[in-house]
Amino acid sequence: MSESSPSVSVEMATIVELCKQRGIIFPTAEIYGGVRSTWDYGPLGVELKENVKRQWWRTMVQLRDDVVGMEQAILGPTDVWQASGHLANFSDPLVECSQCHQRFREDHLREAQLGSETAEGEIECPTCKKPTLGDPRHFNLMFKTNVGPVASDTSIAWLRPETAQGMFVNFATVQRSTRKKPPFGIAQMGKSFRNEITPGNFIFRTREFEQMEMEFFVEPGSDEQWHQYWIDERMRWYRDLGIRPENLRIREHAEDELSHYAKRTVDIEYYFPDASMGWSELEGLANRTDFDLKAHGEASGKDLSYYDQPNDHRYVPYVIEPAAGATRATLAFLFDAYRVEQAPDAKGELQDRTVLRLDHRLAPYKVAVLPLSRKEELTPVAREVFDAVKVRWMCDYDETQAIGRRYRRQDEIGTPYCVTVDFDTIEDKAVTVRDRDTMSQDRVSMDRLVDYLAERLPAW
Amino acid sequence: MSESSPSVSVEMATIVELCKQRGIIFPTAEIYGGVRSTWDYGPLGVELKENVKRQWWRTMVQLRDDVVGMEQAILGPTDVWQASGHLANFSDPLVECSQCHQRFREDHLREAQLGSETAEGEIECPTCKKPTLGDPRHFNLMFKTNVGPVASDTSIAWLRPETAQGMFVNFATVQRSTRKKPPFGIAQMGKSFRNEITPGNFIFRTREFEQMEMEFFVEPGSDEQWHQYWIDERMRWYRDLGIRPENLRIREHAEDELSHYAKRTVDIEYYFPDASMGWSELEGLANRTDFDLKAHGEASGKDLSYYDQPNDHRYVPYVIEPAAGATRATLAFLFDAYRVEQAPDAKGELQDRTVLRLDHRLAPYKVAVLPLSRKEELTPVAREVFDAVKVRWMCDYDETQAIGRRYRRQDEIGTPYCVTVDFDTIEDKAVTVRDRDTMSQDRVSMDRLVDYLAERLPAW
Repeated sequence: MSESSPSVSVEMATIVELCKQRGIIFPTAEIYGGVRSTWDYGPLGVELKENVKRQWWRTMVQLRDDVVGMEQAILGPTDVWQASGHLANFSDPLVECSQCHQRFREDHLREAQLGSETAEGEIECPTCKKPTLGDPRHFNLMFKTNVGPVASDTSIAWLRPETAQGMFVNFATVQRSTRKKPPFGIAQMGKSFRNEITPGNFIFRTREFEQMEMEFFVEPGSDEQWHQYWIDERMRWYRDLGIRPENLRIREHAEDELSHYAKRTVDIEYYFPDASMGWSELEGLANRTDFDLKAHGEASGKDLSYYDQPNDHRYVPYVIEPAAGATRATLAFLFDAYRVEQAPDAKGELQDRTVLRLDHRLAPYKVAVLPLSRKEELTPVAREVFDAVKVRWMCDYDETQAIGRRYRRQDEIGTPYCVTVDFDTIEDKAVTVRDRDTMSQDRVSMDRLVDYLAERLPAW
Repeated sequence: MSESSPSVSVEMATIVELCKQRGIIFPTAEIYGGVRSTWDYGPLGVELKENVKRQWWRTMVQLRDDVVGMEQAILGPTDVWQASGHLANFSDPLVECSQCHQRFREDHLREAQLGSETAEGEIECPTCKKPTLGDPRHFNLMFKTNVGPVASDTSIAWLRPETAQGMFVNFATVQRSTRKKPPFGIAQMGKSFRNEITPGNFIFRTREFEQMEMEFFVEPGSDEQWHQYWIDERMRWYRDLGIRPENLRIREHAEDELSHYAKRTVDIEYYFPDASMGWSELEGLANRTDFDLKAHGEASGKDLSYYDQPNDHRYVPYVIEPAAGATRATLAFLFDAYRVEQAPDAKGELQDRTVLRLDHRLAPYKVAVLPLSRKEELTPVAREVFDAVKVRWMCDYDETQAIGRRYRRQDEIGTPYCVTVDFDTIEDKAVTVRDRDTMSQDRVSMDRLVDYLAERLPAW
């Protein structure tokens, strides 16, 4: 058995196909032809993404006493997005073709046709192949809808383009109800929506996506130190969950690249081994200064400063923001876990086997219970095993096809342990436990099975 | 100590106030004046709602081998909602006032002004107090937005008004990838959106809400039996999680009340002790027949029938749907757990204490670690206790104010166990564990603490 090296390329198409075949992720409304760059999560995908989120919540909220969680409504009023700057600034420059009326990202056309986003020179419509493009206009990326029975300006609501603003708007309420003092943070996971002009790369850039964001409120002056603390913490999180260190890097934003609110920003990038992707952002870590609390304080007329009683000192906290994508992280974990290895088949000949070497905490199923055959006498004992294991872990029960094929199927979806129930089990009350990574097999008595697994699998 | 009886009324305002003060649930964007009937979940609310969802998923997916999960995109294309009947039928009759241009539910005005939704006679505008209302027009309850850079008819997308259609549209894909055979189900939890004209009753009826739905596919002929099975199962779920049986009932839909797709529907209702609410729907259980799979099969041109190979029999499965509201269930659990009891204070005099007697599995924090004072010598040992407990359970750490007040605060948010670290702890390495419900206290040695709690708290 030889392991493929991290430098070996894995094509996006391979991952997309695996996800579709195994019910991990597939196009939404596929029977109607699908919707561009919109995906549904199948039985395994929903467990995988949930496990990623659960590990983030565990690390960022449960294991700390200086971070609490919250959840904001997705539909929000104009006031919030005006104060945050999204209504004015959250836009892309688009050019419209006077002939076909399609719109395009101007910077993308310049890059493609002239070699650089900012190059001077004439660009043409990629459909009509003519210089029929008008002047660039800013196109806001927020989705808009109307609330209530009358469609008028006053009833406009926006689908949030990020979860962060929920923590700024609720800063005072959460601080008061929890009696937390800076440095402390508020965390949120959930869906956000951006009307991207050019979504793509499977679930990497989609119009509907899931975020895991935390806003950490600190006293001005301690902000740079806390920023570095969170950069280190977040890098550790990806590594701890099994991403190979050589596939992770920190990228510092250049001065002219910084958002209007940011003092310093770094991205955590992952090396996607697909040829067209390479290094891509998983998470942004920004020092947002006091921009957000000041903006909402001024717009709302509410005081969003903090009074440090022991030091008789009032200040508007600075904010350090680790903003991760749950959807992107899920894709990175899939890529990093994907291996094609050589393994002997029943006759001892080496064959390719595909295996998702997911960290046990992330694997959709922790255990698969496999009765050797569908013969009736095996069913009661196999059900007994399944019933004992399922109360502790997500567990598959699979009785179709040859056992070797079922092992391969569980390898492909990253199940750490396969428990085989055979005809000897009826007599000796023992089962065979196969390890996904080493393919080694242990004979374990049924009454020791849950303990055996508990020594090897996480409880959470 | 006497327990308040279930028949004692609890006003909605009491629950709303507790939720606001304790950071459970509060109005969204409150610093901007809030948005009608839109709520954010604070540090405790997000844990409570998540625990409700986790218990549903555990019961409906994890503990069964005949139900799998999935997650569909929230933004969906017109095709899906045309085939489902939502574009044509998911609407309320509205009348518009020719003077103030406000719109109202016609049936609600008839009920209020004439005593019955269907009463004949003239109704007037409730604002202008004149008979200035036009003819009723149907107003669709789905939120609409535009996807992509051009706002045209072809780019319309809808915020899903229910999660159910995701399971019908993906029936064949999920069935194939999991090799499940009917009877089997597909479950989904997540946000849905309805442009309700008259939202209200706190989180009971909101435009943005969370559902927990399962579609169970069965062979025609076995549908009535399976329908009854799921009615019994779902009643058991609420009872098992602590809802008092006398506050739950089944309500059978009358013939003329049935949806166009339903053969039989029952609601599980909860008795909300608020005067204006009373019996209200928590969950609907419908026998949807083969309406949905047939409709999507015809509209998409894809075959959504199932071939039963052993019996050489092809059929379109019937669907049994237990459709629960996660948001509503959360409110019901809050109401049912709320008690005002008499308990002796430090001087032995009886005082009111408010306690949320939430099932341990639902309580936001399972444990609170309370150092008796903020004196420096207590901190290391208190942190040691907190660090040992937090890896297993969501745990609060609270060192502010008098211990009695902290106990009351934990009672109010339903924390099952308070662990007090006092000055003796430094010497005897033991802590005091207080039980929320009995208020009894045990002295437990620190090295036995996790085991002591594990015997009393769920691992999941």
